Amino acid sequence: MAERVLAAGVDLGGTKIYSLVADAEGDVLADDRRLTLAAEGTEAVIDRIVGSVRQALDGANVDVNAIVGLGISTPGPCDPQRGIVTEAPNLGWFDVPLVDLVSEKLGVPALLENDAAAAAYGEMKFGAARGKSHILYVTLGTGIGGGIIIDGKIYGGASGAAGEVGHIVLEPDGVLCNCGARGCLEALASGPAIARDAAAAVAEGRGGVMAKLAGDGELTAELVLEAAQQGDEAAKDVIGRAGRYLGLGLVSLLNVFNPESLILGGGLIGLGDLYLKPAFEAARECGFDQILADVTMTTAELGGRSGALGAAALMIERSSNP
Amino acid sequence: MAERVLAAGVDLGGTKIYSLVADAEGDVLADDRRLTLAAEGTEAVIDRIVGSVRQALDGANVDVNAIVGLGISTPGPCDPQRGIVTEAPNLGWFDVPLVDLVSEKLGVPALLENDAAAAAYGEMKFGAARGKSHILYVTLGTGIGGGIIIDGKIYGGASGAAGEVGHIVLEPDGVLCNCGARGCLEALASGPAIARDAAAAVAEGRGGVMAKLAGDGELTAELVLEAAQQGDEAAKDVIGRAGRYLGLGLVSLLNVFNPESLILGGGLIGLGDLYLKPAFEAARECGFDQILADVTMTTAELGGRSGALGAAALMIERSSNP
Repeated sequence: MAERVLAAGVDLGGTKIYSLVADAEGDVLADDRRLTLAAEGTEAVIDRIVGSVRQALDGANVDVNAIVGLGISTPGPCDPQRGIVTEAPNLGWFDVPLVDLVSEKLGVPALLENDAAAAAYGEMKFGAARGKSHILYVTLGTGIGGGIIIDGKIYGGASGAAGEVGHIVLEPDGVLCNCGARGCLEALASGPAIARDAAAAVAEGRGGVMAKLAGDGELTAELVLEAAQQGDEAAKDVIGRAGRYLGLGLVSLLNVFNPESLILGGGLIGLGDLYLKPAFEAARECGFDQILADVTMTTAELGGRSGALGAAALMIERSSNP
Repeated sequence: MAERVLAAGVDLGGTKIYSLVADAEGDVLADDRRLTLAAEGTEAVIDRIVGSVRQALDGANVDVNAIVGLGISTPGPCDPQRGIVTEAPNLGWFDVPLVDLVSEKLGVPALLENDAAAAAYGEMKFGAARGKSHILYVTLGTGIGGGIIIDGKIYGGASGAAGEVGHIVLEPDGVLCNCGARGCLEALASGPAIARDAAAAVAEGRGGVMAKLAGDGELTAELVLEAAQQGDEAAKDVIGRAGRYLGLGLVSLLNVFNPESLILGGGLIGLGDLYLKPAFEAARECGFDQILADVTMTTAELGGRSGALGAAALMIERSSNP
């Protein structure tokens, strides 16, 4: 039997770190979850990443020297070539040489990749897009991002910034987006967009259940979902409208990319059919027939593991094709 | 001196056929222009293509056996692998095996490629995107289409339908597009969109110059331009608004692709700054800084020759890497 190739993968998020040890077939031997605690500073976060990976290795009963390295999925823009997180506002990081820092402490090679791209890669290797080579992965949460795979390889564009699918313009005169433009997909269909629209509905005297659930606190997409599940029509409307905008954004992506696989991932998948049904319906209603016939549209199969598994797979790939 | 490699290239349009003979450096030895006369039927159009290529060969004093083959740039969806024009409404063509038909009559190998993709390739080899490898080419005319080059190769997607950039959704509740969706870029920024908006302005009693120029006939984008040049404010507004929509569509493309080069081509380039300035301004206003820093935005350098030169270059490429 050939020796089993192993790698560690980490999904570094603004609030959580998720680590795993996996083999080349995507089988997970062990994993670890802990908080990021970004407020404690960069060095503390690096230590927590290393601690989390060591914990996963312990759980798998694997020595660190038995893995080919560590793949890290990072939020926001990064430079995979140089191993640098260029900008991670949730972490307060700018130009952090994460690969060097982690690699030195852990004593194995490391690489990093944008989280949506890593998740797309994970889904291609082990999940919903197995066997496909033109893949779009859209991650839906506080932000909306995208991972693009073309001919089986991650497409980063001129400088690794490709895939900003949250900043497709959908309502030129619409609400202001964090990016400075108006009516971007992210400003219309993200978690904060849902919370904002729900608050507006409550302010107009609609959405009694939402108002009750929020109390004196702020509405969140989770609370809007809870209200919708309790029958709040305004809550249902808000989620459905966000879903329809998502679908119209998907139309643009489908018509431009003609992908084989379109995968939706991220926390907002938890909103379920209230959000996803109008999205897929709008895509099917407005996309080109030929393009719709070519594509499989689905949610991520690996769920929260897509990014860490994709990063681990990238590390294994690189170790065998250095 | 190495033997000079030559190929013919044809740009097949709904109204015109343009042929040329060129070498591997993009030098054009001779060319020919004639009408397509699509109404005369498929066989007559094939004969006119062959006649046009022979005329260009004569003009270059080159025997047909001295070229490696013929590259054809075709309008609308096609299947380059099988050499079939799948759908060219302007020609009334569906599933026409153009490569076999032309190749047999001319006695040399042939290939075909979608016109926007061929133009993108031409601009990469010899024009505005020389030395770049991630390129978007947007063609602006009766329709709005796109050619995508990734890593120096034409990207066709799952079935060659990629690049439908005219069908990015920009106004979900906007005017109906030919494709069945609402508010697509093509429905807001194409030649017919400009003519339609101009007619609406005239109907509202604005645009006196436009009304005079149109007389009893229909307004066209050309007439709207003429009126604008004569100082018609309504005409300027209509062109400017279309330009701004174009720019917002470009924002979506830029943010998703992070290209090195974005090239605008096609007949509407003739509208000049009235159209292009608001487009580039909107793109610069709303795109991501990093992405804007990476990209060169410009109009096509090869003008009406991009498609035929790109198709000829593809033929030369294939002949040396069969």
